[in-house]
Amino acid sequence: MNTNTYAVILAGGRGERFWPMSTSRRPKQLLALVGRRALLAQAVHRLRSIIPEERILVITSADLIEAVRSLLPGLPKANVIGEPCGRDTAAAITLGAALIKARNPKAVFCVLTADHVVGDVAVFRRTLKDAFARAAAADVLLTIGLKPTFPSTGFGYIEAGKRLAGPSRTPFYRVRRFVEKPNARIAERYVKAGRFYWNSGMFVWSLSAWERALRRHRPSLGRLLDRLMPLAGRPGFQARCRLQAELKRAYAGLEKISVDYAVMEHADNIVMAEGLFAWDDVGSWSALEKHFPKDAHGNVVVGNGELLESSGNIVVADEGLVALVGVDNLVVVKAGAVTLVCHKGHSQQVKRMVEQLRRRRSAHPWL
Amino acid sequence: MNTNTYAVILAGGRGERFWPMSTSRRPKQLLALVGRRALLAQAVHRLRSIIPEERILVITSADLIEAVRSLLPGLPKANVIGEPCGRDTAAAITLGAALIKARNPKAVFCVLTADHVVGDVAVFRRTLKDAFARAAAADVLLTIGLKPTFPSTGFGYIEAGKRLAGPSRTPFYRVRRFVEKPNARIAERYVKAGRFYWNSGMFVWSLSAWERALRRHRPSLGRLLDRLMPLAGRPGFQARCRLQAELKRAYAGLEKISVDYAVMEHADNIVMAEGLFAWDDVGSWSALEKHFPKDAHGNVVVGNGELLESSGNIVVADEGLVALVGVDNLVVVKAGAVTLVCHKGHSQQVKRMVEQLRRRRSAHPWL
Repeated sequence: MNTNTYAVILAGGRGERFWPMSTSRRPKQLLALVGRRALLAQAVHRLRSIIPEERILVITSADLIEAVRSLLPGLPKANVIGEPCGRDTAAAITLGAALIKARNPKAVFCVLTADHVVGDVAVFRRTLKDAFARAAAADVLLTIGLKPTFPSTGFGYIEAGKRLAGPSRTPFYRVRRFVEKPNARIAERYVKAGRFYWNSGMFVWSLSAWERALRRHRPSLGRLLDRLMPLAGRPGFQARCRLQAELKRAYAGLEKISVDYAVMEHADNIVMAEGLFAWDDVGSWSALEKHFPKDAHGNVVVGNGELLESSGNIVVADEGLVALVGVDNLVVVKAGAVTLVCHKGHSQQVKRMVEQLRRRRSAHPWL
Repeated sequence: MNTNTYAVILAGGRGERFWPMSTSRRPKQLLALVGRRALLAQAVHRLRSIIPEERILVITSADLIEAVRSLLPGLPKANVIGEPCGRDTAAAITLGAALIKARNPKAVFCVLTADHVVGDVAVFRRTLKDAFARAAAADVLLTIGLKPTFPSTGFGYIEAGKRLAGPSRTPFYRVRRFVEKPNARIAERYVKAGRFYWNSGMFVWSLSAWERALRRHRPSLGRLLDRLMPLAGRPGFQARCRLQAELKRAYAGLEKISVDYAVMEHADNIVMAEGLFAWDDVGSWSALEKHFPKDAHGNVVVGNGELLESSGNIVVADEGLVALVGVDNLVVVKAGAVTLVCHKGHSQQVKRMVEQLRRRRSAHPWL
């Protein structure tokens, strides 16, 4: 295996759509929402046999560094980096790139997200390997697209162009354009058209290709890379503290921008790798029902739930009991002293509930 | 005031429709569901200035004796009697009658229930006084009827006949018949007809009138009265234990029958006193919304509740937090480690949920 391969796992989100299970001190990526391991631990585990832990970097928020390090004891301490504040994906990837550049300027790296669920790990690994090989060989920005299994309005889409020739089992395509999260009607059309793929937010590219794209399309982030790189290479506790302090200064003035807006939508050297594995981003409570067996009335129950004349519900109880009588299509989550009851169609709005609580009951342990 | 007046308060129900707040160890009548006092304490307090505590008897279940005594420290210990098992209202009233007969064979007594909510206590007291006067003067069985404020399908009805002459401000009527809980269409008709009243389950009669009716319509309960009476009069701890032991033997073979079936539907000397006070029996969670103020979206919130795009809900949280997002017409009750989510129209079925839990998770602390 190529010793130039690295991985940057983005684990910075607050996961507010998974409140009250996910809180600011124990956000979604640290929870075992699906499967027995925390989502972030699953993301690292999926890279086993492709990238050793010394070459996996996790970008999280500063206040979660210790929690992430204890979740991932196999990762060197220096590989878990905390951002002082969230500045979206373009900055986080640039931070990862600075750390990688300090270690190996010839690196090729993938960008992954902590909250994905992947069905076929073997196929996922083959896709990554094929993508690494292609990214090492050419000045391209590789993005992984997934064939939609339903007309989701929760993902952005990639319109694929011509399929590229090559020996790998993973299909590669030119990219015509990126499109934002569509409405239901348009999503329907995309799925029918056949050439649209879900934009997974997973990328593979060489450090040099990323650097070139960054300096061309977002020079301010190119300067961030230059500023962080000299500090990123140093070993030891003091060096980590210096990097942390520099990040605080540098991030204060940074704009919040996604890698799609900052780079992908402007670049002309983008190639899409089609991921032939089952995939989901576990975006909100209603996504859970895809990952758990249902009872005869379409209910998903995780933990102690007792149901009477109720159908299509998602029940999650950390302890104690949740009892439903005569209700349909609800999400009911009992986490510690908090119970959330939400209509399944409103699960995206849980975030708004968190905001409302923050406004009205500031600094409360429930958040 | 007449020193022959007594009260028997029936406080034996399990209140399963108020689960999970109401449990077998702390049933509905011991909870402050409406108002700051427990419902049973309110029932006793309502009698203040009419009947002193020495002449108020509470019939509850044997395992609740201590809890009731500490709730009502003003009542003599001998006035709180526990039934070894529930045998419905006819037996409980007969037990009360035995205790009263042992103390005062000339007594006139009212039968009240622990879980009623009364709006105008002064009017309630006047009604009772007027009813006591009438019951003392004649061999009649008085029942208190309430003018329906809506076509309830949760109560039985009394069809009133001719209004009786008399000096009191409380109207008295002959009773044509008792009718069972009607369906919605029939309830509607009853309310329109004007001569139908809610059957409150409150009664006033002299001991002699009760005894006569009992021996005539339900001789087996007449024999129960004879059996209990000699034991009921004795003071002290040992006498209470002997009574308790005798109750256990006597109740084992008793049939379960309500006073309506056993006596009222057969007697021809029934008179209805019209209660001119606001009244409710707080039968299930959905009844709560009549007793609490609503927010702008028709929600009733007792305890910590945070609502977003939700309307018509009833939220009760003993501690912690209940958060609703995009849901309507639900009852959500968080009590200790249990959360119940029930459609408002299904609140009568909470009882079935308790049965289901008892079947599946026997002897659990949640019950």
